[in-house]
Amino acid sequence: MNRPAAALTLVEPRDLARLAEAFRTALPLAPGTEPHLAGVVEDVLAHPGSLARAQLAYAVLAELRFPRRRARELATALELFHTASLLFDDLPAMDDARERRGQPCPHVRHGEAAAMLGALGLITRAYQLLWQSFGLLPRERAAQASELVAHCLGVAGILNGQAEDLHFASLGAAGADATARVERVAEGKTVTLVRLSLVLPALVGGSSADEIASLERLSRTWGLAYQGLDDAKDGLLASAETGKSTARDGLLGRPNLPAAAGWDAALERLAGHLDGARAAIAELTARRPGWARPPAGLGASAAG
Amino acid sequence: MNRPAAALTLVEPRDLARLAEAFRTALPLAPGTEPHLAGVVEDVLAHPGSLARAQLAYAVLAELRFPRRRARELATALELFHTASLLFDDLPAMDDARERRGQPCPHVRHGEAAAMLGALGLITRAYQLLWQSFGLLPRERAAQASELVAHCLGVAGILNGQAEDLHFASLGAAGADATARVERVAEGKTVTLVRLSLVLPALVGGSSADEIASLERLSRTWGLAYQGLDDAKDGLLASAETGKSTARDGLLGRPNLPAAAGWDAALERLAGHLDGARAAIAELTARRPGWARPPAGLGASAAG
Repeated sequence: MNRPAAALTLVEPRDLARLAEAFRTALPLAPGTEPHLAGVVEDVLAHPGSLARAQLAYAVLAELRFPRRRARELATALELFHTASLLFDDLPAMDDARERRGQPCPHVRHGEAAAMLGALGLITRAYQLLWQSFGLLPRERAAQASELVAHCLGVAGILNGQAEDLHFASLGAAGADATARVERVAEGKTVTLVRLSLVLPALVGGSSADEIASLERLSRTWGLAYQGLDDAKDGLLASAETGKSTARDGLLGRPNLPAAAGWDAALERLAGHLDGARAAIAELTARRPGWARPPAGLGASAAG
Repeated sequence: MNRPAAALTLVEPRDLARLAEAFRTALPLAPGTEPHLAGVVEDVLAHPGSLARAQLAYAVLAELRFPRRRARELATALELFHTASLLFDDLPAMDDARERRGQPCPHVRHGEAAAMLGALGLITRAYQLLWQSFGLLPRERAAQASELVAHCLGVAGILNGQAEDLHFASLGAAGADATARVERVAEGKTVTLVRLSLVLPALVGGSSADEIASLERLSRTWGLAYQGLDDAKDGLLASAETGKSTARDGLLGRPNLPAAAGWDAALERLAGHLDGARAAIAELTARRPGWARPPAGLGASAAG
């Protein structure tokens, strides 16, 4: 079963099938690859999830008339970074999850070391794919794109977000302060990868500064809404429904919007973020009608 | 103390001081960076080791008249990749080491999760630095350079070597077969990073195909000799002398040349590799007298 698990469709079915195929074949293994390492890579590539990030990036690049093959490479790279982040997140030293996408986590089946090495393999391949698409760009734009990647994936971005997520309980914040902290972690942990899915392809594809500013706003509001909904799901649903280990935030002392703000205030904040996202989409659509399509299809179904 | 630990000097003292400074300041942290993550990054950047890989790469690029600042960036990137690999190697799921460079390992002081996130931070920054130096190159050469990086750092290179290292005991080889397997692991685990230190800068700096072939040979023979000497040290020296946890290969069932081949045969193989390295250096020197300097200064003192 190599088809994406979720029903999220932001691109033409034929393009989605090609993205799924590009992901499935993203990292060919040489014969004789060590079996634990090979097992991790094969497992994660065989269960691609919704490919939400790849679809978003591809939709943006297609709208900007970027060459299709290079667009698929960039989209695949983002999905590989995301998949690598899930491999690390699920390790015992982080979230200690046992299943993901309805399967036992790779570290459960093949060992922690192999999960780490496999994740590094995905990252290495992702950088190579990014390089291939950046190689088409004017030097100045390639430099901006690589700055954005380094910022989002580095110690100022997702890595700090993940570290704050893990050590959230030790921060001891309460009330409004706790809500702000929860959203700060979400900015590091979640918004960064949304920015890579929306702003990076816009930059690579040559969007205007105005469009990029609107996409920055959309990334932030939608990312915060997405993480808030994920937090809400964590408390509400059983593992069987989400396909990953749930109700863990409370157990692990992790940031969780309804837990920090209470349900009423949390829903109000979510509504505010979704309003912000709608406003950003309206700005984008006013400039370029094609923008209406991808974000309008987005919802809470884009599960990891 | 921000000076390199070992006495290995392959470049002018002023250049070495600049390389040390470039490494020390390679990853500035924003105020408010999560303290465990910040602790790992600060610890590893404060204890740079011999900077052997950075010195090698810089020496090659200097000989090829590559712009000095970009040469330092590429050299620093290689040292960051190497340092990240040590952070992963030392984790409990891998070598379970407790000290490195005379200090407690970062995962011991700051936790495993922070060690992984810090390592990923070094890798992210290293790719950004590589991009900056590749940005100067003709597109074709930049593409070759990024292929080499992806090959050496990916599942066909160091990651497979590390996976084979960890699962070596389960392979159950003996005799001549065991020796071949030990060296196969060393090719993945050690030779790949030597190739990045010698062949990558030669490619980036515009060496001829002949020179690159000689540097490939030098990388392989010198890498195998280096790993064989490291294996020998593992059995012979106490922790106090090497500054890292030792005598672990036997305990952990890891590949070790003298253990696999016996001391006599191991020393014979080492001599053969060193002869091969000398021959490669002679080829290089015959073409370009400047090559004589860096490799001639190399020896067994380039400890990790």
